[in-house]
Amino acid sequence: MPKHKIGIVGATGYTGSELVRLLIDHPDVSIEIITSESKAGQSFASINPHFKGRVDMKLEPLKNLEDHDLDLVFLALPHGVSMDFVREWNPDDFRVIDLSGDFRLGSAEEYTQWYKKEHVAPELINEAVFGLPELFRDRIRNAQLVANPGCYPTSAILALAPLIKDGIIEPGQIMIDSKSGVSGAGAKAKQQTHFPEVFGNFSAYGLLNHRHTPEIQYNLEQYSTKPTEVLFTPHLIPIDRGILTTTYSTPAREIDKNYLGEWYYSFYEKEYFIRVVDHPPNLKHVRGSNYCDIHVTYDERTNKVVTVSTIDNLVKGAAGQAVQNMNLMFGFIERTGLEISPLSP
Amino acid sequence: MPKHKIGIVGATGYTGSELVRLLIDHPDVSIEIITSESKAGQSFASINPHFKGRVDMKLEPLKNLEDHDLDLVFLALPHGVSMDFVREWNPDDFRVIDLSGDFRLGSAEEYTQWYKKEHVAPELINEAVFGLPELFRDRIRNAQLVANPGCYPTSAILALAPLIKDGIIEPGQIMIDSKSGVSGAGAKAKQQTHFPEVFGNFSAYGLLNHRHTPEIQYNLEQYSTKPTEVLFTPHLIPIDRGILTTTYSTPAREIDKNYLGEWYYSFYEKEYFIRVVDHPPNLKHVRGSNYCDIHVTYDERTNKVVTVSTIDNLVKGAAGQAVQNMNLMFGFIERTGLEISPLSP
Amino acid sequence: MPKHKIGIVGATGYTGSELVRLLIDHPDVSIEIITSESKAGQSFASINPHFKGRVDMKLEPLKNLEDHDLDLVFLALPHGVSMDFVREWNPDDFRVIDLSGDFRLGSAEEYTQWYKKEHVAPELINEAVFGLPELFRDRIRNAQLVANPGCYPTSAILALAPLIKDGIIEPGQIMIDSKSGVSGAGAKAKQQTHFPEVFGNFSAYGLLNHRHTPEIQYNLEQYSTKPTEVLFTPHLIPIDRGILTTTYSTPAREIDKNYLGEWYYSFYEKEYFIRVVDHPPNLKHVRGSNYCDIHVTYDERTNKVVTVSTIDNLVKGAAGQAVQNMNLMFGFIERTGLEISPLSP
Amino acid sequence: MPKHKIGIVGATGYTGSELVRLLIDHPDVSIEIITSESKAGQSFASINPHFKGRVDMKLEPLKNLEDHDLDLVFLALPHGVSMDFVREWNPDDFRVIDLSGDFRLGSAEEYTQWYKKEHVAPELINEAVFGLPELFRDRIRNAQLVANPGCYPTSAILALAPLIKDGIIEPGQIMIDSKSGVSGAGAKAKQQTHFPEVFGNFSAYGLLNHRHTPEIQYNLEQYSTKPTEVLFTPHLIPIDRGILTTTYSTPAREIDKNYLGEWYYSFYEKEYFIRVVDHPPNLKHVRGSNYCDIHVTYDERTNKVVTVSTIDNLVKGAAGQAVQNMNLMFGFIERTGLEISPLSP
Repeated sequence: MPKHKIGIVGATGYTGSELVRLLIDHPDVSIEIITSESKAGQSFASINPHFKGRVDMKLEPLKNLEDHDLDLVFLALPHGVSMDFVREWNPDDFRVIDLSGDFRLGSAEEYTQWYKKEHVAPELINEAVFGLPELFRDRIRNAQLVANPGCYPTSAILALAPLIKDGIIEPGQIMIDSKSGVSGAGAKAKQQTHFPEVFGNFSAYGLLNHRHTPEIQYNLEQYSTKPTEVLFTPHLIPIDRGILTTTYSTPAREIDKNYLGEWYYSFYEKEYFIRVVDHPPNLKHVRGSNYCDIHVTYDERTNKVVTVSTIDNLVKGAAGQAVQNMNLMFGFIERTGLEISPLSP
Repeated sequence: MPKHKIGIVGATGYTGSELVRLLIDHPDVSIEIITSESKAGQSFASINPHFKGRVDMKLEPLKNLEDHDLDLVFLALPHGVSMDFVREWNPDDFRVIDLSGDFRLGSAEEYTQWYKKEHVAPELINEAVFGLPELFRDRIRNAQLVANPGCYPTSAILALAPLIKDGIIEPGQIMIDSKSGVSGAGAKAKQQTHFPEVFGNFSAYGLLNHRHTPEIQYNLEQYSTKPTEVLFTPHLIPIDRGILTTTYSTPAREIDKNYLGEWYYSFYEKEYFIRVVDHPPNLKHVRGSNYCDIHVTYDERTNKVVTVSTIDNLVKGAAGQAVQNMNLMFGFIERTGLEISPLSP
Repeated sequence: MPKHKIGIVGATGYTGSELVRLLIDHPDVSIEIITSESKAGQSFASINPHFKGRVDMKLEPLKNLEDHDLDLVFLALPHGVSMDFVREWNPDDFRVIDLSGDFRLGSAEEYTQWYKKEHVAPELINEAVFGLPELFRDRIRNAQLVANPGCYPTSAILALAPLIKDGIIEPGQIMIDSKSGVSGAGAKAKQQTHFPEVFGNFSAYGLLNHRHTPEIQYNLEQYSTKPTEVLFTPHLIPIDRGILTTTYSTPAREIDKNYLGEWYYSFYEKEYFIRVVDHPPNLKHVRGSNYCDIHVTYDERTNKVVTVSTIDNLVKGAAGQAVQNMNLMFGFIERTGLEISPLSP
Repeated sequence: MPKHKIGIVGATGYTGSELVRLLIDHPDVSIEIITSESKAGQSFASINPHFKGRVDMKLEPLKNLEDHDLDLVFLALPHGVSMDFVREWNPDDFRVIDLSGDFRLGSAEEYTQWYKKEHVAPELINEAVFGLPELFRDRIRNAQLVANPGCYPTSAILALAPLIKDGIIEPGQIMIDSKSGVSGAGAKAKQQTHFPEVFGNFSAYGLLNHRHTPEIQYNLEQYSTKPTEVLFTPHLIPIDRGILTTTYSTPAREIDKNYLGEWYYSFYEKEYFIRVVDHPPNLKHVRGSNYCDIHVTYDERTNKVVTVSTIDNLVKGAAGQAVQNMNLMFGFIERTGLEISPLSP
């Protein structure tokens, strides 16, 4: 079978370089072009020196995309820039997986409310499929445009879906306390991510108004069909990669701890990338891999359900999930190119 | 004024060495004896080499305590060992500040339930005063036995007290999500705290049954007189020191964000060590100091109150608070010896 | 082609689990047995939870080795224990790659001097081939017993070999200043590797007498045939994995900077895993991979050659190099199973 | 005694904020003014939030200096900017301690060679006294202009001085391998110090041409009067603060290990801030303090002297040493305000 042809748009951020890491080892696709407006002409490995000897491609300007007969393009662009690309895009040319937040919400209004800017391609918002394979696999297969989920939403939605699905919890009283490594803030240096400031530190940020809040809420709702309300609080862990999310919710009916554990096992039984675990998971046990580890428990004393879930934010939270979506869209075996052992210690 | 004479029992752990750090700079007390059964005869600085040139004392066996005419003894002993000491103690000899968990709960039954052992001095449980000066200052002044608060409870109770005090929140639905540096697990090497396991990692532990749960609950109740119920989840941050605690609770009446901020400012207006801050605090901004930074906010959308608070677990969460209690007990100015700038970066 | 059958002896340390990580993805071998005396009967994934879903094998006692018709056994045992195994070993049964230090030196006397114990299989010391493929490839192909190099020696010898080979430097005045992540100290918790002690710290250790000193010296000598003398100083970096080695040496003849760079490029031109780089390398750019990055420069002012080299101590410094040796011994393409991108950031 | 009046020029970097940390606790001086051109008008604590509640001063423009009758001014300015200030300065107004590199070398030519710019106040270069109290105490007492040593030079010169002084080593063959925490690179965010790039990383930089090379060389020479030549290689440790320096040198005459240790003890016997230690020192054992820990040993086998020394780069390597110099200049007891315990763990 000839390999499917792939383009990566905007490959100088962490998401872009992680896509390259995964795709160069993928047996059924070939990367035809990697674009970067600001670094066009430079070699990819000069920007990402760890790829020296592994990737021998030059970065090209965006306009070169049309020189290739591509099957699919990954957009590793900032929020707000992706939608400009998508607006101009002709779906007959190639399919698109967008790793930004531009097509993950329910409406242009909601987008404007949380992202503080007008959406330029509102008619495509409902075309886009939210690319969480474990929940929306069938829709992804046939999608022309996939909105690849955010890192926090991936960790939170996968942890909560079994509770939401079966009406186990009250959907209007969910508290989500997330903790992320610093690569989630992007590859560009900022004062808040200057090494001496973050080292030995820990902090919360984006209280009440983080953009992943409506993403979690809207997509849980899509899954459950019931109105859902979540309070989401992200924190910064002084490490490079990984997200751990703790959720608190209230049962809508009588449950017990054993039932919950069994329900999670059966819910995710056939999912290769979801590992339901008996003990609270370690972030490092998913590092570099596409796994999502989930632990669930129930506290009788306070009548609360607690979940703890972990992902690598750059893999299952970004590039890995994007490849998983691509596999579905191309009809490949879903885990092709993603059977990667976590790097621990 | 002659200096008050102090003994430190069990000074080879982190709490013990931190007490020494603070007390050697205290103008009004002198350390007369530092005990360690296992290391008796060795110099304190050989066990804690960073004190070379600053502390020139030998560790002595416990029985030598009686050779000194002490005014106060700090117990930096493990849980379960402290109560053995206290049972034998004659309150006419010296006052005691116990840094273990042995005298922080409401009853011997509760102790047995959470600590899985019998209490050997149950009659002293109600004698002991919970040493959180900002809430129980008057009782501490006259106490013979102070139960110095745990690190997590300090960060949680100080953050929640203004909400509890005024009946602002429902006391039965409080979620506490805490994150601690590894020094909270003690100075003794364990497999879970082996460097390569913790580095780059993050995890939750002690779900549902951590011993600080009843400590937070009981002492909030003491303060509010209403039945209180908390769900407490601790996590391990891969850093050496510091605790950040995020709490979620539900208003019992109509409130607004401005009111909450003002209420916190006025509540803690006269407290030297409490800094109410407008933005979510950074853990590193309290490192090495006795400060507790607290931020409060209210989410109209979900009708929840969120607080974020930070302390250095070895200072305000242990040794620093113990010295603050000592200052009260001796009638000193409360912040004597504790006006230490945080070490940042 | 049927897969070659592999055994791993002692797979509960970091080296053992890293061997598993690499070998389960190797297309031409199958792991038949993983042994552990202390954990026999437990599942490998219960000891190494990050392998849950990827490895479904039980740990077996050593004696079960004979139940399998193995082609090759990796010994991931502590120093001093490996030689007991090798003494009893029948070379007709299977070939051996020993990852301990037991067969890396030149003689039993030297072993005793640096390891402070008698060697129990002195007659096999000269049988063993030092498994550094870039220097001793031909001997490795036919070896029955390969002594897999230590982590520090790998980083130092690869950096110095081009200088030694051509008589470029004085072989008797070499200073080696190495820095290693903490996984090099093994998987077992010790007081010196307790997280709060290492975090934010940095220190030198093993001054003058580290066991890797004679290993570097003896094997450089093997390569150059001239008497070699090195002073080796290891330091502990507060990270999990990686070694960076800086060496200082004095030219034996007139050289210039350009010549040196070109010499290194040509020397390692055909080596897949050696990347000669123009700038001092970043440790993180080899993380998780089998690469060794090397930079060389010459200081006219002081007439010194300086090299800086980096490896992942658990990969090129242990398990990866062992697999590279195995590939040679089996006649596979040398990089089979080892084309792994470094994990960065 | 009225307090001496101090000004701090340029207090928004790490050196400036560390000066404030030390000076606000100093019993005999008062900070009259802190300047910042870019942040003038803002409160110092808004820029450095960890000082909230401890420092209640506004940042002022430089021109306000003249409104205060100052005794001494600390210049915490970048290299190249300090000399502009000094050129305009009238020594009758106040004494100056310059924490930049502008007055640390021997001549304007040498400055131009290493700093790649013209010196604007060459006539003052020889007026300036190199502020390393342990070596140049007498000159410092009477200096009008003190060039406060760089962080690396402090750690290297203090380690080598006893060897140089007594002609113990060849002064022309000294190798200095230093490792520094990231605060040494300043408070301003740069791509190379972006957290995800540095975390888990380690690297060398500034090979052969780091500006601290001539500073070490020139000032060792001042001390020994013999021509000195050093090769200096700095590395970046992924921590916030601290420098560890390892040096290698060759004896100029016959020595033994015991002699060396004793010589160091006697050399630094009266120095409060120098701790000669029997084992290689831990960086963390000086964190936050003005100590310099030094270990020396001699390797008979290779005939080399090895030293390992540690300092906190922001304290003994910058602000602490500056305060020590100030104490000398004012005739205070030298350690006033600097008796600070290291913060460990």
